Amino acid sequence: MEGGVVLLDFWPSSFTMRVKIALAEKGIKYECKHEDLFNKSPLLLEMNPVHKKIPVLIHNGKPISESLIIVQYIDEVWNHKSPLLPSDPYQRSQALFWGDYLDKKMYSCGKRIWVGKEDQEEAKEELMKILKTMEGELGDKLYFGGDSIGYVDVALVPFTSWFYTFETCGNFSIEADCPKLIAWAKRCKESESVCKALPDPLEIYGFMLQLKKRLGLN
Amino acid sequence: MEGGVVLLDFWPSSFTMRVKIALAEKGIKYECKHEDLFNKSPLLLEMNPVHKKIPVLIHNGKPISESLIIVQYIDEVWNHKSPLLPSDPYQRSQALFWGDYLDKKMYSCGKRIWVGKEDQEEAKEELMKILKTMEGELGDKLYFGGDSIGYVDVALVPFTSWFYTFETCGNFSIEADCPKLIAWAKRCKESESVCKALPDPLEIYGFMLQLKKRLGLN
Repeated sequence: MEGGVVLLDFWPSSFTMRVKIALAEKGIKYECKHEDLFNKSPLLLEMNPVHKKIPVLIHNGKPISESLIIVQYIDEVWNHKSPLLPSDPYQRSQALFWGDYLDKKMYSCGKRIWVGKEDQEEAKEELMKILKTMEGELGDKLYFGGDSIGYVDVALVPFTSWFYTFETCGNFSIEADCPKLIAWAKRCKESESVCKALPDPLEIYGFMLQLKKRLGLN
Repeated sequence: MEGGVVLLDFWPSSFTMRVKIALAEKGIKYECKHEDLFNKSPLLLEMNPVHKKIPVLIHNGKPISESLIIVQYIDEVWNHKSPLLPSDPYQRSQALFWGDYLDKKMYSCGKRIWVGKEDQEEAKEELMKILKTMEGELGDKLYFGGDSIGYVDVALVPFTSWFYTFETCGNFSIEADCPKLIAWAKRCKESESVCKALPDPLEIYGFMLQLKKRLGLN
């Protein structure tokens, strides 16, 4: 593995999609190893013994875990093109803030929507509050990163591949309330790095149906 | 406020202690504004409208929120002395990983111990697991940062001012199982930056008793 770049991957995960976008933005070739989260590989357990979670980036045999930390690492190591984080410390702190905000809110909120128990309505309201907050932060910019895709775009856009699943499970429309955010997502997907990293929303939906079955949530 | 450094503070918070240590390490003078978390100031609500939480660092009139993001900002802006994060991208990623790990685990775990409900035993076990993991990461080094205090030291040491509270509420000894970590904490407190930022553990305990009363948790 010496000298190479390996990604421990799980295709429906928004977190691994972030890493794929960042690597594609930098033009880095890498090997993808698909993990079965119901039967984790010895390599995953060895490389991320603390959390035992994907994604893990293995670079020169050394592991980096936690998707946004990986994105920051990629940005620092391959700094020859496509800067993702701003170089100004204040602007950097604001990008890190929004990445952290998404990490604290999006996954758990989305999960409560597709699980569909008694807190689903509350989760739908919370999701719309998060997305409206992000829409406000986007403002009239093309991307969160300004004129090109940056760290916050990388942090948020993978979740849009789950929007169809959220909308179908929750019977609501995200676009109706957040048209500018949906326009931004479409703009991002015109970029090859994003387009290739994001699975078809219908495949995500199919995966979620199988996962619910497997977890006994039907 | 232009040109100045202001910290929106709440003295028993481990998160504001982090910012105080980082500012002291860099030798930065600042104004401390104490917040009443039961009656938040208009300034706090204006400066951190998303989370409405302390700490907030206001630098040149512009706010930075989330304690570890503030520590990273301080390290980048005042880079003339006491580097907190390593300059090597891999070492940086590992320091960020441990900071993130502590953020995900410590506060909620500690709170479940001092609240003292039916999940207290589970929380005690979880805390010891976290602390043993950190002790393993410390290894034989003087500090997590190596020979001097670094980002992970700044992230973890504030919680040690709560150890007396955890131990008293949970009727257990942290030192018995983690002697090296306690030795490290004492070493950190020999540094003026840490010593001045950490309140007396007995005052923290007194604060917690009042807080429980106020929250109707007795």
